Amino acid sequence: MSRDPDRKPLHLNAFLMTVGHHEAAWRLPQSPTDGTDVEHYKNLARIAERGRLDSLFLADGPVLHGDPGRRPSSILEPTVLLTALAGVTSRIGLIATASTSYNEPYNLARRFASVDHVSGGRAGWNIVTTAGADAARNFGLDDTPLHRDRYLRAAEFLDVATKLWDSWADDAVVNDKEGGVYARAERVRRIDHRGPHFRVDGPLNVRRSPQGHPLLVQAGSSEDGKDFAARYAEAVFTAQQTLEEGVAFYKDVKRRAETFGRDPDGIKILPGIVPVIGATETEALALDAELERHIVPEYGRRQLARLVGVPEERLVLDEELPDDLPTEDEIEGAKSRFTLVVELGRRERLTVRQLIGRLGGGRGHRTFAGTAEQVADTIEHWYDSGAADGFNIMPALLPSGLEVFVDQVVPILQERGLFRTEYTGTTLREHYGLPRPANRLFDTADSAAGTG
Amino acid sequence: MSRDPDRKPLHLNAFLMTVGHHEAAWRLPQSPTDGTDVEHYKNLARIAERGRLDSLFLADGPVLHGDPGRRPSSILEPTVLLTALAGVTSRIGLIATASTSYNEPYNLARRFASVDHVSGGRAGWNIVTTAGADAARNFGLDDTPLHRDRYLRAAEFLDVATKLWDSWADDAVVNDKEGGVYARAERVRRIDHRGPHFRVDGPLNVRRSPQGHPLLVQAGSSEDGKDFAARYAEAVFTAQQTLEEGVAFYKDVKRRAETFGRDPDGIKILPGIVPVIGATETEALALDAELERHIVPEYGRRQLARLVGVPEERLVLDEELPDDLPTEDEIEGAKSRFTLVVELGRRERLTVRQLIGRLGGGRGHRTFAGTAEQVADTIEHWYDSGAADGFNIMPALLPSGLEVFVDQVVPILQERGLFRTEYTGTTLREHYGLPRPANRLFDTADSAAGTG
Repeated sequence: MSRDPDRKPLHLNAFLMTVGHHEAAWRLPQSPTDGTDVEHYKNLARIAERGRLDSLFLADGPVLHGDPGRRPSSILEPTVLLTALAGVTSRIGLIATASTSYNEPYNLARRFASVDHVSGGRAGWNIVTTAGADAARNFGLDDTPLHRDRYLRAAEFLDVATKLWDSWADDAVVNDKEGGVYARAERVRRIDHRGPHFRVDGPLNVRRSPQGHPLLVQAGSSEDGKDFAARYAEAVFTAQQTLEEGVAFYKDVKRRAETFGRDPDGIKILPGIVPVIGATETEALALDAELERHIVPEYGRRQLARLVGVPEERLVLDEELPDDLPTEDEIEGAKSRFTLVVELGRRERLTVRQLIGRLGGGRGHRTFAGTAEQVADTIEHWYDSGAADGFNIMPALLPSGLEVFVDQVVPILQERGLFRTEYTGTTLREHYGLPRPANRLFDTADSAAGTG
Repeated sequence: MSRDPDRKPLHLNAFLMTVGHHEAAWRLPQSPTDGTDVEHYKNLARIAERGRLDSLFLADGPVLHGDPGRRPSSILEPTVLLTALAGVTSRIGLIATASTSYNEPYNLARRFASVDHVSGGRAGWNIVTTAGADAARNFGLDDTPLHRDRYLRAAEFLDVATKLWDSWADDAVVNDKEGGVYARAERVRRIDHRGPHFRVDGPLNVRRSPQGHPLLVQAGSSEDGKDFAARYAEAVFTAQQTLEEGVAFYKDVKRRAETFGRDPDGIKILPGIVPVIGATETEALALDAELERHIVPEYGRRQLARLVGVPEERLVLDEELPDDLPTEDEIEGAKSRFTLVVELGRRERLTVRQLIGRLGGGRGHRTFAGTAEQVADTIEHWYDSGAADGFNIMPALLPSGLEVFVDQVVPILQERGLFRTEYTGTTLREHYGLPRPANRLFDTADSAAGTG
């Protein structure tokens, strides 16, 4: 296919996860032995930047996930790890997940502002509310707060954070050595926030950052999650199993954004995909099968039982899911994940063992096993069908899966005019084609005169 | 003087503070314009490592300190900034200040473990309880918690953090690809902490780090602070105005450590000093005077009034401190700082203006203006007199003051056999000559078999 100059480019993020998204990745001989080794991540960052990807992305939760035996579960804190990766890259964006349920807005707003400064405007925040009683029990609670309450807190958290990021006008620092005025006091303002969850005086002790504030990303796909995304998010990470569901989700979120008075193009929809790439389709399917063969099903059954809200012994490895599962309304954990997994199992009539195999590959994200050309075709097809503004690439194996994607799939997408061949901007928002946000506490004229 | 091979070396940290510790540093023509610029800090880190210093140190509080006009007050979050500096250095330690009053132990323990991993065992945590109502009001409180309560919380916080760091045995990760066991479940343990301030189940989601856990540093010199230091700290940062006070403090803390059953050599006492160095003494004094001339006294009076607990108008610039100040017992803020400043003012019969001048140089730390030889003499004298195991170097101007110290004072100390000429270890604890801590949750034999 030839390049079409009018075609809007798509966006690609590298979703990094220890030695790969497939839970059995670490068992393959080519995998590194330690997911906590910063050199491994630096290598991944360099590969992704070589591919001109929009960003690196790290999922996170303040809890040890799953059985220590199952897969590498020692996970470096994302703002720290991405700061380390900022030092070995110069353009690629850096999106860290952090929880609004288990942080204080002053601390987190400051940390993201700091990452944005240190990286020259490349920070993004994937805003999560963190489901699960095990996380709650690391913070003095007995159980996870109610889903709705988590989202109410998240909305207020974001309101506070945004005001803190805006508490310095872009032109506050004058550095008047002669007059003895470092910053103009009237251009640095307290926020005096008073709300049901937070009381925060401010101002922040970090000046406004290169992007104004980090790119705001959201990753939940429940009703509350979609509304939250439509209202605040600039990018949405989502798991969509079928093209039809992907198209419906895309339309739904864009429409919701419009009802909040937003430009639907100001919110990028980025489904996750797990590419398993081979020189031939047979080779790719063999790699996929090899990975699935290395799954230890007992670990997965324990996790699946928690997810669908039944005791472990109710799940029989060679039978389908029980008929009498709870409904999404009864789940206080990850609602949209619950529905996705249950629907996948029922639609394809999978046994528990098969379902575990499918989830082990990328926890509910779409797996494509094929040649680089086939993976590029699928990406293009989803993109052209209106299911995605881009993709969150989740290699089954790291670094090898990312290397193959960058060296083989990206050139095809570039050739088709679907993806950039060089970075044109320096900030993450510039990669996404999004504007630097105006300062809500100081007027626009002054903000425009700032460092943006 | 010739080198004495039996002489125990002293320790030197570079205490970094925007463009210098003197509040008027930014007004001098040689000073950079932005204290938020990571390149400025990377330069400082490289200079300090060139001097073979033990560590970089960053003070911190979750609040905008003082008037925006007075000095650069936009301060990057220390764990983020030090992670960025880890990438441009390979040996020097990285000590970040963080508050036990305004963080959650799970989050902070994890972040420090992450910095220790990313830096290859160079992390230190300066544990502070954060005085001041303005910080409290960024976290939903009306006023600072009581001094004693802050220290009770700090002790429990540290207990939780230590257990979390120890929740993975050093030999937990076995990476048994064949058997399908990444880590041995019985070597990763919940902590199930239940206390008056915290309930935390654990385990941490980061494996035990190269140093076991970050070096523990303490910086308050109140009675509660000294007891806390004697019980937990491996290094103490302190402000001492006179040699006699320094010797008394040194003996006091070492003695207290012994009463807790600790080796007094396991806790390093490091007073802060503000060297102002010139080619001649006259030149050094001229630089000191130039800095003092650039202080805007109105800013300092406002801050001093808050510190000593009186309304601003009670402080008259050309008069001494009022006689009827509160006592240390009545101060709920920074108690030891209060006493130090009031005693300095009364002992030397300083006017408020003079006192502001003295504090502007380094907020109560000892300033030495002189030649490199004189500064080295003073360091040696304090060291030989038993007032210090080393020093926290607080250059009035950055980078120039650090450059002069490293290039002119350090070689003299090396020549006298007082300071290392090369790093002999790779971790911060190795620089301080301190052992890697045993794991409290798993037995010592297994810990010794670990990655230490």
